[in-house]
Amino acid sequence: MPIGRRRWAIAEGYIPGESHGPAPAVSSHEAACILNAGERDAHIEIMPYFTHRDPVGPYRATVQHLRFNELNDPEERPRDASYSSIITSDEPVVVQHPTLETRQAENALLSTIAYSEA
Amino acid sequence: MPIGRRRWAIAEGYIPGESHGPAPAVSSHEAACILNAGERDAHIEIMPYFTHRDPVGPYRATVQHLRFNELNDPEERPRDASYSSIITSDEPVVVQHPTLETRQAENALLSTIAYSEA
Amino acid sequence: MPIGRRRWAIAEGYIPGESHGPAPAVSSHEAACILNAGERDAHIEIMPYFTHRDPVGPYRATVQHLRFNELNDPEERPRDASYSSIITSDEPVVVQHPTLETRQAENALLSTIAYSEA
Amino acid sequence: MPIGRRRWAIAEGYIPGESHGPAPAVSSHEAACILNAGERDAHIEIMPYFTHRDPVGPYRATVQHLRFNELNDPEERPRDASYSSIITSDEPVVVQHPTLETRQAENALLSTIAYSEA
Repeated sequence: MPIGRRRWAIAEGYIPGESHGPAPAVSSHEAACILNAGERDAHIEIMPYFTHRDPVGPYRATVQHLRFNELNDPEERPRDASYSSIITSDEPVVVQHPTLETRQAENALLSTIAYSEA
Repeated sequence: MPIGRRRWAIAEGYIPGESHGPAPAVSSHEAACILNAGERDAHIEIMPYFTHRDPVGPYRATVQHLRFNELNDPEERPRDASYSSIITSDEPVVVQHPTLETRQAENALLSTIAYSEA
Repeated sequence: MPIGRRRWAIAEGYIPGESHGPAPAVSSHEAACILNAGERDAHIEIMPYFTHRDPVGPYRATVQHLRFNELNDPEERPRDASYSSIITSDEPVVVQHPTLETRQAENALLSTIAYSEA
Repeated sequence: MPIGRRRWAIAEGYIPGESHGPAPAVSSHEAACILNAGERDAHIEIMPYFTHRDPVGPYRATVQHLRFNELNDPEERPRDASYSSIITSDEPVVVQHPTLETRQAENALLSTIAYSEA
């Protein structure tokens, strides 16, 4: 009995342009962290949305069965910018995404659960 | 098949009065970030609630189809103050909102998913 | 049509013992922030849970209709300590709660949505 | 009428390797915070997932009825590393988990609600 859902939405996420922290910790925060606890590979599509232009994509990725992946978007995605995304999968998965902290001299990132639908 | 819901609630949010970080990052955090991944424009109503006086509004905004918007409340909304809001939409949308970090010398903001109902 | 639910759970929250930030921002973070967007007053019960002793309470509070309240627990609740709580209401409400950041020299608080059931 | 669910997922969590803050606050953040507000003990299984190797476990723990526990994984779990987990319980429970902040000179942790299914 797999856990998760096939459609997820990120209303506001953030991909950092460069890292200021120690390398191993920072490199683990990409556009989305996706858990596939099921027995089959999950084929993922990520569609980014913008304020002032049409969505591009979808971009595609595979999350292996019984694996946890930190997915990044293709190089063309702007870094150091807010974004919005819809993530669809052919298998149930669980998605977390980074969120930006902006009021400090040095910005920070945290991940939070995305919005999901069955 | 649109993703999202038509009613969202923010139990506690925060609109900063001024920014201390670099301009592009800070300007992306307004009262709410709303994703409309559907094919039709979403007409949004935001109703702010207070502890010691009656709610005012609703304020209105439009989020274009296939777009992501960072909505701010009208100028009259107090800044540098906690607030509570109900957001309603005629189309399914996904809402994130800023939350305040208070224990540091320099306060910080993060966004988190709002509470939703179908 | 009221928004919210009648049962909420906080698996881990935190009530600060003293504040280091500017007074108005800090004072807005209490044990729970509760929005009652309905037409009737909501009568709230908060039951705190601990690791090594029996739960105490329930503590009671009222959140006025169309109001947003920052509730604190009674004075007897330990401050500067993690806690767990069940919040029940006779009317639908929306609950956010503070969460502790621990890895910085100066700890920080953020609020996040609580777990809810209809 | 117990509150909570029997299956929870953490898409991305983090277990710190060492603490920099004051001891009582830091020690309260383990792999997961679990509330069992029901009348019976909850028997928990935690299955950790990785990117590059098979899942190990499950690890087992008990959360006493009417208690709140901060569970840690066995010693073998890598610290200072991101992880993904599925938590199952024979009784309804509520789960929060730590999430990592990476963009600051000094990393920080916050807890957020996990993803749940009935």
